[in-house]
Amino acid sequence: MDIQEFVANSIGRWRSQRSAHHLAFSHFEAVQSEIDIVALSVHDPAVIDLCKSYNIDPQAAVSPFRMSWEGQSDWDDGEVKGSCVLVPIPDPDDAHRGKLLRDQGYAETIAAAGDYYLTADGTFVLTTAYERAAAEEKIWFVNPNVRCRVSLIKTSAGTGVVTASFSSEIRQGVQN
Amino acid sequence: MDIQEFVANSIGRWRSQRSAHHLAFSHFEAVQSEIDIVALSVHDPAVIDLCKSYNIDPQAAVSPFRMSWEGQSDWDDGEVKGSCVLVPIPDPDDAHRGKLLRDQGYAETIAAAGDYYLTADGTFVLTTAYERAAAEEKIWFVNPNVRCRVSLIKTSAGTGVVTASFSSEIRQGVQN
Repeated sequence: MDIQEFVANSIGRWRSQRSAHHLAFSHFEAVQSEIDIVALSVHDPAVIDLCKSYNIDPQAAVSPFRMSWEGQSDWDDGEVKGSCVLVPIPDPDDAHRGKLLRDQGYAETIAAAGDYYLTADGTFVLTTAYERAAAEEKIWFVNPNVRCRVSLIKTSAGTGVVTASFSSEIRQGVQN
Repeated sequence: MDIQEFVANSIGRWRSQRSAHHLAFSHFEAVQSEIDIVALSVHDPAVIDLCKSYNIDPQAAVSPFRMSWEGQSDWDDGEVKGSCVLVPIPDPDDAHRGKLLRDQGYAETIAAAGDYYLTADGTFVLTTAYERAAAEEKIWFVNPNVRCRVSLIKTSAGTGVVTASFSSEIRQGVQN
């Protein structure tokens, strides 16, 4: 599987159940949300601007997309809402690796560039270094209408795991 | 990584946070437990008996172990407790694949033999077919003291996912 196929399989509306484990104090957080993943044109100004902000030639971008989410958490004040543009930049020498640019990260609300690879069994693995943390994410399809996603937030030294979260995502608008 | 190394890395006591997503009705279940994984001798009568019950030569067994768990769920009457013996039988032609025998399964309380493989990036993947369901489990180490485990219970036809659960497991008795 290459990144084009992975993104194509991800396009759509998903109902997500996410559980976050805050490991230091054994807290469980439950989040229910809807996620929309929409393909963007490589000529979209948001895509071109994001590439330029990383000094990357926009012609290297493939399968850019926008991800939006809206939901409720059972923790804190509850509302969970956001949107970001994501732009894969495949490695010219290895179709299974590359960079993923995004205009807003998960662990901090700043732009971030992560490194991805696709495993032989079709798992997308993304590692992103932030100033004070590192994020590692694995996403795979169980079938065309069910995705799993595991996200780990680590201390920036990369050894301690602060939060481990798991999402099960079911495609909406189809019969399961 | 081969199965011997994977089992060796797993021996110990783990504090587990598990979230189960019951997908049909968007229910979250939270379970906290302690898991003990203890190495067994290949000469242990429980190991030999389990091999014999599958007509497998006990000399083919490597790194057998016992797993016990005890904890609390926030659903139903809450107590979660069990124990099973697990016996890896590597494929003689491929050190990264094999069968895993156990004297009690997860989805049904009967003995089960699953098929495992280890991916290039060290994930243990186990597929077990039961009479009325199929289970798929992935386990990987984030670091020597943190394991992640994703378990999927599917309908026996293998297409629909009934339950997706995620465990984060932290080794006890060490400083993280």
